[in-house]
Amino acid sequence: MNILEIIDAKKRGRELTKDQIDFWIKGVMSGDVENYQTSALLMAICLVGFSEEETYNLTQAIINSGTTVDLSSFYDLSVDKHSSGGVGDSTTFIVAPIFAALGYKCAKASGRGLGHTGGTLDKLESIRGFNINLDKDQFKKQIEDIGLAVISQSKDMCPADKRLYALRDVTETVDNVGLIASSIMSKKLASGVKNIVLDVKCGKGAFMKDLDAAKALAKEMVKIGKRANKNVVAVVTNMNYPLDECVGNSLEVYGALRVLEGERNNLYEVAITLTSELLNSMGVENAKQKCDVVLNNGKALEKFKEMIKAQGGDISLLNKGYLLSSKYVYDVITDETGYVQNIDPMGIAGTVTMLGGGRLKTTDTIDLYCGVELQVHVADHVSKGDVIAKIYSNAETPSAIDRVKKAIEIGQFQVERPKMILAVEH
Amino acid sequence: MNILEIIDAKKRGRELTKDQIDFWIKGVMSGDVENYQTSALLMAICLVGFSEEETYNLTQAIINSGTTVDLSSFYDLSVDKHSSGGVGDSTTFIVAPIFAALGYKCAKASGRGLGHTGGTLDKLESIRGFNINLDKDQFKKQIEDIGLAVISQSKDMCPADKRLYALRDVTETVDNVGLIASSIMSKKLASGVKNIVLDVKCGKGAFMKDLDAAKALAKEMVKIGKRANKNVVAVVTNMNYPLDECVGNSLEVYGALRVLEGERNNLYEVAITLTSELLNSMGVENAKQKCDVVLNNGKALEKFKEMIKAQGGDISLLNKGYLLSSKYVYDVITDETGYVQNIDPMGIAGTVTMLGGGRLKTTDTIDLYCGVELQVHVADHVSKGDVIAKIYSNAETPSAIDRVKKAIEIGQFQVERPKMILAVEH
Repeated sequence: MNILEIIDAKKRGRELTKDQIDFWIKGVMSGDVENYQTSALLMAICLVGFSEEETYNLTQAIINSGTTVDLSSFYDLSVDKHSSGGVGDSTTFIVAPIFAALGYKCAKASGRGLGHTGGTLDKLESIRGFNINLDKDQFKKQIEDIGLAVISQSKDMCPADKRLYALRDVTETVDNVGLIASSIMSKKLASGVKNIVLDVKCGKGAFMKDLDAAKALAKEMVKIGKRANKNVVAVVTNMNYPLDECVGNSLEVYGALRVLEGERNNLYEVAITLTSELLNSMGVENAKQKCDVVLNNGKALEKFKEMIKAQGGDISLLNKGYLLSSKYVYDVITDETGYVQNIDPMGIAGTVTMLGGGRLKTTDTIDLYCGVELQVHVADHVSKGDVIAKIYSNAETPSAIDRVKKAIEIGQFQVERPKMILAVEH
Repeated sequence: MNILEIIDAKKRGRELTKDQIDFWIKGVMSGDVENYQTSALLMAICLVGFSEEETYNLTQAIINSGTTVDLSSFYDLSVDKHSSGGVGDSTTFIVAPIFAALGYKCAKASGRGLGHTGGTLDKLESIRGFNINLDKDQFKKQIEDIGLAVISQSKDMCPADKRLYALRDVTETVDNVGLIASSIMSKKLASGVKNIVLDVKCGKGAFMKDLDAAKALAKEMVKIGKRANKNVVAVVTNMNYPLDECVGNSLEVYGALRVLEGERNNLYEVAITLTSELLNSMGVENAKQKCDVVLNNGKALEKFKEMIKAQGGDISLLNKGYLLSSKYVYDVITDETGYVQNIDPMGIAGTVTMLGGGRLKTTDTIDLYCGVELQVHVADHVSKGDVIAKIYSNAETPSAIDRVKKAIEIGQFQVERPKMILAVEH
């Protein structure tokens, strides 16, 4: 076997065998397969296609490239949530505490933000003292003790995925359902969790722009998970608009806090759907009601604070005064009267990046305390002179006002409130 | 403009603009475009397609990556021949002398052998003293003086082609008509010659396995040449069998010598077609007859010797005793009686490589004085006990006998002599 035969087979439209995929990924790790060979193969995969069987085998090969986590001491209760990445998406801070408050064990390894997508680790680090680097034993003990922990993804887990992703990103070979599915699912399966809910974002602010593609990805990931004996459910959610009103690292902690404290908005709706759909699939009755109980009685908020504290964070900082404490605050005031037609997630995310709150390269340093707080939703009526958003910045950046104004489209026609939940795949 | 947009455009099936192709090739040369990006783009080109316009623009971009030759002092008389590579193909040593003997100026830059394909430079170096490294002035002066010269391709000419080819070779992106055409034609156009005949090999021993693909390549190259104001004709020739009886470096010089001295075999037929088709396209009347005259009266042989002498070679060595002087000679004797059905060019070339006469890598050192001399042609009748080939080797390699025997297929049915000339494209 050699890599040229494998590239040639895919180029001619053949399905790669398990052995061929193993050979490729081992070669990626050993360096025997060169980057330029992998990128040619990736392009052939994008153009020719990648079957369910190939996707499963690639997922397994990626898992085998590194270490896996053993959560057998609480395997049946173990839960995890994954988001394919969007704007204003702080569901983790609501979903994980709900699970913990209901007695489940939420073991979450997260990443940093890149491009328009925020990162859970960056957001948590806006809480002074929060430590994202627990070792395996600390991680497991914290989950056993309080039911939840969020840490940094281990470098030893799925290293082949990191190499493939780095290459896909610079060769326009990101957008293949099989490649995306194996990248996400390899990490989820290696993390040792049994019950997994996948939040597949769909729309202008997501990798998946249209519903059919998002559904296809959701289906593919559920299949891979089931084949690996996991309980997996996928929810396709609307990412044509920022999910929460708060966008930016510390701002998103504040946005989640508001839901934990009683706010019932789009972020709430997506979070409650993710938790209740996973619990449904685990055979829990009245799942949504149960989730609402722990949200309403403050037990989920309590779990969130327990986690912050257990990982060294200062819970006295969990308030608007600290989390929205930038040097400058700009009001975005509309010149128009009408209805909010659209809020462009890329425009809002782009503003946050401009303010210093987003990364263009993985090595960029970011400002955790800047962002945009929307004051309106799609379908809201606004009048000339209304404040439609606030901008939090640590530099003088009045030009951000126009950027945000452009992202919030106001028109004369009444529009419907967008549906947040687009599909559920079991 | 950036390379990701260009890769994406091709991936989505769009035609690349001249600016995009220039940007890509400049990036290849400057290093701003990484190899893994070029290989992804090459794979997309292979799978999506490359138009005539794109092929022309790539050809020009490759030419602009290096220097070109100025042959204006004898431009209208300048001629060149290119072969797409085969087994036992020593036509250069017949074609160039015929042109020179008729008063044309044959300016030829050649390469070395690789894989199953022999190289003109290696063959010439089997003549002791022959110098393939003339500088530009020496090259032009020799052509002005005696009408022909064969030298090594300049490293400064079409350097982008070398980089692209090295990458295509290790990423299974060789077999696209546009990429092959631009690779060949860039070098031909940069060499400054006006009249070009292309020998497009077709069959088991060629890059182009089937006639339609070979014709498509021939057409594409003729179009590119005409668009660049050159006089170009392409001849598609049969490479299902070794072209000449003699295969191996010094052996092929001997094979050509035999034709220059009067032998009229397949090698003769292809050589005379290449020369006469080009002369026809230049408006020469009775071209084939004129070529035959200089072959028959020894003037072409004389020109060949003049060139060898001018480039430092010892013409007293142009004989069987020197050129077929290996340490061991093995007779291949058939056990069967019947007709020769097939002579596999890859089997014969593989034997030469095994004997040390072929390269697997460009850095391999080869033995110039080994090879195979076929004693039969396809359609010949043979009887058990006949010598069907001779093997010339400088190492004890009796195992080569079986290899050659396997390559010469003998059966009971009479077969027709294969046609050597399959198509001519003007």
